[in-house]
Amino acid sequence: MLDQLIDALRCLPGVGQKSAQRMAYHLLERNREGGLRLSGALAEAIERIGHCELCRDFSEEKLCVTCASSSRERHLLCAVESPADRLVIEQATGYRGLYFVLQGRLSPLDGIGPRELGLDLLATRLAQDEIRELIIATNPTVEGEATAHYLAQLARQFQVQPSRLAHGVPLGGELEYVDRGTLAHAFGSRTDAGL
Amino acid sequence: MLDQLIDALRCLPGVGQKSAQRMAYHLLERNREGGLRLSGALAEAIERIGHCELCRDFSEEKLCVTCASSSRERHLLCAVESPADRLVIEQATGYRGLYFVLQGRLSPLDGIGPRELGLDLLATRLAQDEIRELIIATNPTVEGEATAHYLAQLARQFQVQPSRLAHGVPLGGELEYVDRGTLAHAFGSRTDAGL
Ligand SMILES: [Zn+2]
Ligand SMILES: [Zn+2]
Repeated sequence: MLDQLIDALRCLPGVGQKSAQRMAYHLLERNREGGLRLSGALAEAIERIGHCELCRDFSEEKLCVTCASSSRERHLLCAVESPADRLVIEQATGYRGLYFVLQGRLSPLDGIGPRELGLDLLATRLAQDEIRELIIATNPTVEGEATAHYLAQLARQFQVQPSRLAHGVPLGGELEYVDRGTLAHAFGSRTDAGL
Repeated sequence: MLDQLIDALRCLPGVGQKSAQRMAYHLLERNREGGLRLSGALAEAIERIGHCELCRDFSEEKLCVTCASSSRERHLLCAVESPADRLVIEQATGYRGLYFVLQGRLSPLDGIGPRELGLDLLATRLAQDEIRELIIATNPTVEGEATAHYLAQLARQFQVQPSRLAHGVPLGGELEYVDRGTLAHAFGSRTDAGL
């Protein structure tokens, strides 16, 4: 039974045998109350949290809080790979438009195509809603770029303007530690300093 | 509800806000089945796993498998701080005696004294059982050493020979993270406690 608990803990990302064992011992030795609360929170969240019908983000209701809000700019739609990406954009920027959460990226080898990313739903929204710009905020990885390319084409089909986050040297980052591709891109895309 | 899950995940050792969030998203996006299994395993383990009446290790039964075994050498008793320490000794060495799991170490500032470590139970065993040697395998930390000192005195009170793991375990290191070869050597070369 202890073995089963240790094994079950390994479903958590980044948790191997050793960590799982330490977690199980910790809960049983020092925090059974916390363990029970976690057990309940897991069961409840898994049972009750589904996806927003409009943006595919996690939601207990048919529509998430953002999609249901009357104060968001409905002509801006930002496509992100995951709820976590959606959250950092919401927290880090002043963005007040809507989102579309792909819950993944195009990856044919893993069987993840347009259908798995809900792109039929996205197409419907681009066709019917009052969206004027699709901000494509996929990750700058090979698969993320391929996904961005696909999304840009989709947007143009519906006369929606696609845009991408700017690439470049991170603020506060040291040139020495920026990867060469980013640096080359940033150099090539240099702008008027405006200083 | 998502916030509650993220919060509950933070009861796991070494899991902060960021990791908890990643874990919650991962389970909801990619492994709801694993999450439900974890929920069940947690509830079941917490409900059914108690402590062995003889050695205080985790056990579903009144006596753990080791204490109930007829093939262990019953004149050797090895005191360890935690079930994890007991497990590494069992796996890394050829030890075939019995164990006593303190479930902690003396730490007066945290309110952990002899009673919390079950030392009354240990004294009873030293007095009544056929134990000839108490192998003290507490961690080589300040509190572990203080605990070892206390245990050595307790053993002598009952004419039981106390011994300590040999040097080889790094000072300030935790048994759980010592490589198996070192641990096996240290275990084999244990010396008189001399405390
Ligand atoms: Zn939504
Ligand atoms: Zn036992």
